Amino acid sequence: MTELRILPLLGWPEVREGDDLAERVASSAELEDGDIVVLAQKVVSKAEGRVVRLDDVEPSERARELAGDEDPRRIEAILQESVRVVRSRPPLVIAETRHGFICASAGVDSSNAPEEGTIVLLPVDPDASAARVRERLRDLTGRTVGVVVSDSFGRPWRAGTTDVALGAAGIRPLLDLAGQRDRAGYELRHTQIAVADEIAGAAELVMGKMDGIPGAVLRGLDLAGEGTAQELVITPERDLFR
Amino acid sequence: MTELRILPLLGWPEVREGDDLAERVASSAELEDGDIVVLAQKVVSKAEGRVVRLDDVEPSERARELAGDEDPRRIEAILQESVRVVRSRPPLVIAETRHGFICASAGVDSSNAPEEGTIVLLPVDPDASAARVRERLRDLTGRTVGVVVSDSFGRPWRAGTTDVALGAAGIRPLLDLAGQRDRAGYELRHTQIAVADEIAGAAELVMGKMDGIPGAVLRGLDLAGEGTAQELVITPERDLFR
Repeated sequence: MTELRILPLLGWPEVREGDDLAERVASSAELEDGDIVVLAQKVVSKAEGRVVRLDDVEPSERARELAGDEDPRRIEAILQESVRVVRSRPPLVIAETRHGFICASAGVDSSNAPEEGTIVLLPVDPDASAARVRERLRDLTGRTVGVVVSDSFGRPWRAGTTDVALGAAGIRPLLDLAGQRDRAGYELRHTQIAVADEIAGAAELVMGKMDGIPGAVLRGLDLAGEGTAQELVITPERDLFR
Repeated sequence: MTELRILPLLGWPEVREGDDLAERVASSAELEDGDIVVLAQKVVSKAEGRVVRLDDVEPSERARELAGDEDPRRIEAILQESVRVVRSRPPLVIAETRHGFICASAGVDSSNAPEEGTIVLLPVDPDASAARVRERLRDLTGRTVGVVVSDSFGRPWRAGTTDVALGAAGIRPLLDLAGQRDRAGYELRHTQIAVADEIAGAAELVMGKMDGIPGAVLRGLDLAGEGTAQELVITPERDLFR
């Protein structure tokens, strides 16, 4: 590889339920085989109709407790997306989602929502979302690409968020160096690189939350393969950092 | 911005103590103002002589306990680099370093070490390392660039490692969106993006552990400013994820 290029997807109007994201990608980028298309979770969720009106949410007692001075309906929506509350400090909630993601507000977000009084949930199955966009891009363009659905997550011990891969299709999400050797002949044991997360973070650098850039295309990586972002969700028994 | 380019630094011979890394960067890349140079911690540590011979390490009782079947001298070197053991499962140790980083083996690594029987420690002050390379690059090339020193860290809840910024100079490591508004006018509260970590991860995508590529140049980002990677180390009282 000589160079990695990251091209922002530009000129998209607001995404609404039912919009064909692959069509938008195809008309805003000249795709090549092997490209990796990164789409912000927010646009995927909006296209899939994962939007809730706060007026339709009835807050539970628990939601009222966790909400502090904030809207308990928003907290209720978070609880409904969660299998477990990991930490809370009203009105902040870190929760585990049904997908196994541990993140602020179970990924529920009111910024960049389609209209006032609505909130956006994570896709039901982000790997399936990525796979659908990938297949549709192949139909539309004839190109075989990878697709990653990304979102901004906080993490323990370090300030700020980095984008990670919630969904993936057509790429190897983990690059396994086990059995490979360094220049001195030492085996690089235990080393798996979460390239899908690095791809999501790299795309975030050109996306920028304010400009409404919905995604990016990475060109120059050789990571085509089969895999899902679910592989990045670590099982507790394997997680020495937990 | 139209495009982010990430160019690997190629053709470096093995780095030894006292080597001038800025000179190597300058001769393997045609730098431009605003570029961000990412260097792998390993080459920075080697140039700074942060290499220890295992024969010079006397293992303590605690090191023997934590080592399991592995070399207790390596564990002793890890303990000497640590202020606190966060988790352990012999022979694996997650530790907090003097810098406040929480990572496997306190960053001590035997892969890619200069010779058999040696291990490589993290730089004493990676922000200072980055600042020195930056100043020297300005002297050599007349260019004003950012510099990031990166390393691969594991993290809770997610499989694999991603590269993060251990040191930084000449860039804003956190992009603060507080007070900014989205298209609907909602304030993007609480949102700080750890761009220095995303930069480190993006560079890792072209570095590849096996090829011995020691770093990369990112071109096209507008992140020049003052800041250090120490800002990415979160204080416990602000860390809801901890």
